[in-house]
Amino acid sequence: MPTDSAPAAVTLQPIAVVRSCFDDRFGTPRQPGLVPSATAELILLPPYDQPESLRGLEDCSHVWLVFLFHASAAKGWSPTVRPPRLGGNRRLGVFASRSPFRPNPLGLSAVELGGIINEPGRRGLLLLNHDLVDGTPVLDIKPYIPYSDSLPQARSPQGFAQPPARRLVRFRENVLLELADKPERLRALIEETLALDPRPAYRQSESGRMHGLYLSGHNVRWQVLNGEVWVEQVEPVDDN
Amino acid sequence: MPTDSAPAAVTLQPIAVVRSCFDDRFGTPRQPGLVPSATAELILLPPYDQPESLRGLEDCSHVWLVFLFHASAAKGWSPTVRPPRLGGNRRLGVFASRSPFRPNPLGLSAVELGGIINEPGRRGLLLLNHDLVDGTPVLDIKPYIPYSDSLPQARSPQGFAQPPARRLVRFRENVLLELADKPERLRALIEETLALDPRPAYRQSESGRMHGLYLSGHNVRWQVLNGEVWVEQVEPVDDN
Repeated sequence: MPTDSAPAAVTLQPIAVVRSCFDDRFGTPRQPGLVPSATAELILLPPYDQPESLRGLEDCSHVWLVFLFHASAAKGWSPTVRPPRLGGNRRLGVFASRSPFRPNPLGLSAVELGGIINEPGRRGLLLLNHDLVDGTPVLDIKPYIPYSDSLPQARSPQGFAQPPARRLVRFRENVLLELADKPERLRALIEETLALDPRPAYRQSESGRMHGLYLSGHNVRWQVLNGEVWVEQVEPVDDN
Repeated sequence: MPTDSAPAAVTLQPIAVVRSCFDDRFGTPRQPGLVPSATAELILLPPYDQPESLRGLEDCSHVWLVFLFHASAAKGWSPTVRPPRLGGNRRLGVFASRSPFRPNPLGLSAVELGGIINEPGRRGLLLLNHDLVDGTPVLDIKPYIPYSDSLPQARSPQGFAQPPARRLVRFRENVLLELADKPERLRALIEETLALDPRPAYRQSESGRMHGLYLSGHNVRWQVLNGEVWVEQVEPVDDN
């Protein structure tokens, strides 16, 4: 094979790491734009942490992040996947999906930019409405440019065309009491996250099974009853 | 520094290579969507060349490509860049730009999907309206999903908000004769490419300097006279 048709492997160094309200992969939304109350900090790593490298981003409402699916990378890939959005039955080619199990475990998300972080020894971005799990290594940040990036008329594979359906989310009395002295955003984060019903496809028809997930340092216990999500308990977890 | 804030480097293997109408970096448009007549073939490399990996892409009008700026990678990066779009004078942070000179030389383009290539030993995609130079190594292909990728209301840095201005392109008689027995698309490709005036920012005000660039195996000689592009000569080049 001629050398020009077999390009060499490339070694890339993460430029930043994400500190996210989604402490765990379970519950992290599968696309950005679905959980408006989601927050994260993207912290630049040395030697990429010069404030100059972000100059001009204050004029941007959204950025692209190219990141590593670090929580999924070790599981490898196969040529076809069964996207949860399609009910877990239909097989699609991995390149026709946004599955994290890919030949190169690269993620791509357009996220809202909430602000620039520029403190001594701590430079980066405040991210909103994102889909990034805590600890995500970031390879690149790019400004969102509507004239070349925004294609509202684009046709996508069947089942991906519409945002996912949302369930009604209800809070038990004890949970409302627990949340009363917490930031307003935590309740919204729980509601928006659980409305997407993060259960795997094969559990979507179950009722009354208790689930737990971690959000912003809280353990959230919930179940689905008659198609509605009930938040049963919210407890802070010790940060270790 | 705790290990979780210094993620490890990652080695990625290109999954495909692009065979493009843009033989050279000079003249290649700086974003996709600007040269509708641009064509390319993305050819999957083994072991990623199973036709199953593309299943479902026939329902997609556009795909994201994450690729390597292979022609620029060796030149390194600096924290600020002077984007040609801003006249080459204003400095922006590298992460507020789409410059190819980045810490990780990753490119990102949403391109039109013209079809699936599925021949024995030759699998891939036909790409249209792209901005990829010949030989570009591709790391990932993803479907374009309008509900999370299309943000027409996004604000981008000053100067990037509008597509670039276009110059009028005129063809000399001898060029029209030369093009008469070539595919119609070649003339459109030349016109759309030169309308973007690929000269570097510091030459944009010049008049009457002859330039050459390679498009679809042709050497195209042109100059700008009184703000209009004149195509002076088009000659096939020997493919070696």
